[in-house]
Amino acid sequence: MAPIKTKSAPHGERRAAQRETPGGDEKWRTALTCIEPNKILVRGYPLDEMMGRLTFGESIYLLLMGEVPSPAIGSLMEAVLVSFIDHGATPPSTLAARNTATTGAALRACVASGILGFGRYHGGDIESCMHFLDSGLEQVRNGSSYRDAAAAIVEKCLANDEAIPGFGHRFHTRDPRAARLFQMALELEAEGEHVQMIRAVEMVMSDRAKDGPPMPVNIDGAIAAVCGDIGIPPAVANALFVISRVPGIAAHAREEIERHKPMRQIDPKDHVYDGPYQRRLPERRK
Amino acid sequence: MAPIKTKSAPHGERRAAQRETPGGDEKWRTALTCIEPNKILVRGYPLDEMMGRLTFGESIYLLLMGEVPSPAIGSLMEAVLVSFIDHGATPPSTLAARNTATTGAALRACVASGILGFGRYHGGDIESCMHFLDSGLEQVRNGSSYRDAAAAIVEKCLANDEAIPGFGHRFHTRDPRAARLFQMALELEAEGEHVQMIRAVEMVMSDRAKDGPPMPVNIDGAIAAVCGDIGIPPAVANALFVISRVPGIAAHAREEIERHKPMRQIDPKDHVYDGPYQRRLPERRK
Amino acid sequence: MAPIKTKSAPHGERRAAQRETPGGDEKWRTALTCIEPNKILVRGYPLDEMMGRLTFGESIYLLLMGEVPSPAIGSLMEAVLVSFIDHGATPPSTLAARNTATTGAALRACVASGILGFGRYHGGDIESCMHFLDSGLEQVRNGSSYRDAAAAIVEKCLANDEAIPGFGHRFHTRDPRAARLFQMALELEAEGEHVQMIRAVEMVMSDRAKDGPPMPVNIDGAIAAVCGDIGIPPAVANALFVISRVPGIAAHAREEIERHKPMRQIDPKDHVYDGPYQRRLPERRK
Amino acid sequence: MAPIKTKSAPHGERRAAQRETPGGDEKWRTALTCIEPNKILVRGYPLDEMMGRLTFGESIYLLLMGEVPSPAIGSLMEAVLVSFIDHGATPPSTLAARNTATTGAALRACVASGILGFGRYHGGDIESCMHFLDSGLEQVRNGSSYRDAAAAIVEKCLANDEAIPGFGHRFHTRDPRAARLFQMALELEAEGEHVQMIRAVEMVMSDRAKDGPPMPVNIDGAIAAVCGDIGIPPAVANALFVISRVPGIAAHAREEIERHKPMRQIDPKDHVYDGPYQRRLPERRK
Repeated sequence: MAPIKTKSAPHGERRAAQRETPGGDEKWRTALTCIEPNKILVRGYPLDEMMGRLTFGESIYLLLMGEVPSPAIGSLMEAVLVSFIDHGATPPSTLAARNTATTGAALRACVASGILGFGRYHGGDIESCMHFLDSGLEQVRNGSSYRDAAAAIVEKCLANDEAIPGFGHRFHTRDPRAARLFQMALELEAEGEHVQMIRAVEMVMSDRAKDGPPMPVNIDGAIAAVCGDIGIPPAVANALFVISRVPGIAAHAREEIERHKPMRQIDPKDHVYDGPYQRRLPERRK
Repeated sequence: MAPIKTKSAPHGERRAAQRETPGGDEKWRTALTCIEPNKILVRGYPLDEMMGRLTFGESIYLLLMGEVPSPAIGSLMEAVLVSFIDHGATPPSTLAARNTATTGAALRACVASGILGFGRYHGGDIESCMHFLDSGLEQVRNGSSYRDAAAAIVEKCLANDEAIPGFGHRFHTRDPRAARLFQMALELEAEGEHVQMIRAVEMVMSDRAKDGPPMPVNIDGAIAAVCGDIGIPPAVANALFVISRVPGIAAHAREEIERHKPMRQIDPKDHVYDGPYQRRLPERRK
Repeated sequence: MAPIKTKSAPHGERRAAQRETPGGDEKWRTALTCIEPNKILVRGYPLDEMMGRLTFGESIYLLLMGEVPSPAIGSLMEAVLVSFIDHGATPPSTLAARNTATTGAALRACVASGILGFGRYHGGDIESCMHFLDSGLEQVRNGSSYRDAAAAIVEKCLANDEAIPGFGHRFHTRDPRAARLFQMALELEAEGEHVQMIRAVEMVMSDRAKDGPPMPVNIDGAIAAVCGDIGIPPAVANALFVISRVPGIAAHAREEIERHKPMRQIDPKDHVYDGPYQRRLPERRK
Repeated sequence: MAPIKTKSAPHGERRAAQRETPGGDEKWRTALTCIEPNKILVRGYPLDEMMGRLTFGESIYLLLMGEVPSPAIGSLMEAVLVSFIDHGATPPSTLAARNTATTGAALRACVASGILGFGRYHGGDIESCMHFLDSGLEQVRNGSSYRDAAAAIVEKCLANDEAIPGFGHRFHTRDPRAARLFQMALELEAEGEHVQMIRAVEMVMSDRAKDGPPMPVNIDGAIAAVCGDIGIPPAVANALFVISRVPGIAAHAREEIERHKPMRQIDPKDHVYDGPYQRRLPERRK
């Protein structure tokens, strides 16, 4: 008779039996950062040498992927992180953070509250879109054309009454962030099969949407495709999303604390932007 | 008789009367990000134009401070963010995140759990050190020498049985991150009175510590001084700390999920680093 | 051509189009608590009348289920909540809370950090076990015996290399909480088909485990069966789990703050219990 | 020269030197719950014996205070927990939880997000009111009358432009929960000097408020006074607040998920209660 595998003990005790490594007293391992007296090595690089030589974006890549990115991948990494940094006052994650801020909570509590609002319907599209594109690419590897593969995976989603991950937007009929990211990938010669796949899906969607609202690739889709092409796995792309929006959430929490009265009732539909209107970046930045 | 100001209603209802702006139906205001169809302006700059032109670090500064940083301040901003990015597996915030990760929780939940561990004793030193240095600088403005002001504020802390914020370290007798940040501030000509003040405190501490353990400036102190000199207020410096450690916490949570068995018991003293040992940054980065 | 359903806008904007209710300006609805001047109605009952007449456990049931429980169901509700209240210092959720507490964070932050550790492997068994038992009961309704249904659903789990939800424990070969909850359900005449089903599974497990370690019903399984029999849906049972462990997490966070030094390294395997050893409840409580 | 006490290492490393207990390898201690094979002792009582004999409210008291409460204190404990259980959809903590729920997050994440909104202005009054009443009682012990002590501590608050903790309410001119809790304390003969003190403050407030809005004792004030009289310290009263509102937050999160579309924009002012209107508790509960 087969041995029984039980999902055994509840509440923290369960599966503890699994944790013992052979030998019992072996140490557990981590490959991220080595701490010694007067020395901090991140993935092997002295942290003080990284300061001034690697940007924060490149260091994030190093920490998550294990190596310093090439200049092209480093540029795309920065662009991906910048593209997500904020989307105004209406995302529910931002509103959760503002509602926490209005109670007088510490900034870290507001940020934690905001992060927890990255749920299934909010930010989850990058990972799903990567799996979606991969399912198309598998068909291509089996001999299908990109166009046929795209049509097949779109059909499958629609047949299951699912939305197409990475497509469509409430505010934007053309997502300016997606367009810019594809342009950068092209210029940096980092385009690959994932971008080709999403372009094929875009054409299928465009044909189908002739009589309806436009269904543009959104920034989730663009990031999914570009991350796929530069070798970032879905779980790391998901981590990038969480990391990239933290500054936006922190900025909203701080603005809530500084500009508004405590314990106010926050109606997301009732606000107005009063910052500087469209301006040009300083010349040296172009 | 004076009107009574009450801290009135409990549990969310309190102070609601204060929220009504004159006119009652006025909209509330935000100056961070403007969202229009096919247009996203962060502090006035089109987000798609920022991509490829501003780094993530510069964009964080823009979002929190309202303007694009100068090249020197941009470099210091990147260095500050990089300096905090991780400190191995033993900080309690990282352990909170790993304990959450071992239960099979989502990455965002692990990161939130970790952030909440930035408490009074953990990361709170930057803000306190900024106030500490400012109290010394006030004495300088009133005619005291830097050395006398430093001695006075150190004495006051010790008389109150308080630790000196920004000084001392468990592992490091010389914090390599602090040394590097001061060097960068010097090279970028961004040094000012806050760095001068902390140098004076360092000398006072060094005299006092002759018979005891060394009391070096730590990275909290270095960041406090540099942020003070480039005009970053304490609350923004605190936000930078939260933002900068998120990648480290996310990386530990991901490593916990990928390398270790679920529901294991995590002993912080029982681990070993098994990543690459000290290596040199790629040449082009120097 | 069929209309395209898109999972459209990312990051909080998506699906907003769906939210507009017909008419657009209709108010949104809540059936939990009505607030009027000097009046608070929870599910219709004045909160001040509930005080002294309903226990906290009965009020939790009222809030989640909409009605005051019968005396039998009220007693089971209290027992379920009490059974989960704490399980010592080793559950990862408790350790996350203690790691947060050692940084000097606020109690609410420690509790939030702990709650986030109720993940897939920790506390998730109640909901899965309810679905597991329901799948067996469906076979019973289709003519199968309890014993055959139990064997079939156990086989299916094992064939999928899944653990049997609600069975097995690291520390306990007989979970005293589960035994007591079944006894109470029997005495209160609240036993039904879910308890019958889990008893059948227990017999199948016992037969199979003859050569291996014992595979007792654990408290997750017992709660799943009892909740099923008294009409509590899986999602509410999941909420009960979260609610019931909060006092335990809060107590550990408070003890960490009161008894231990800040910023200590917490080894879950290195502690000892120093409270009162086994004692009898005051007589009037029996 | 005095030894220097440094607030040393930043980011988790700080103060680690303090943690070593004498001997170094001593185990750390916990007095909450003892786990042995087939035995769980909460403060010394077998958990399975507590089930059916102690209510959840009594068990919470046991866990936090170390002993089984007397019947009178047990009843007050239940009433305190019930009084806080929910206050409708407008508290910012509840709105943070609903905003997290609308993203499709797990229930535990919604509850954590809500808890984090118990900040300085929201729920913090119980602890402050306890300290406020204690400062009055100190004057009484020094020979002052209750009335004079009340007048003095009110004056001090007003002079510092601070609100009087435990007084006033946005919705209620007479807080029905506070009235009921005082009545129970009276009937259960648990009234003491803290209730006497808050009554004296109430009279001072009432005299002062003749020309202004009424300034009733609110539920925070009532709980502060009653907890003071039954020997619950401020930090435990704060823990009770966190514990008591968790069911309300969980219920709102569940309702958000079940009744509303995902990713909706939640306006706190735009809702209506559609549950049962005022009804009487079942007869046997009176």
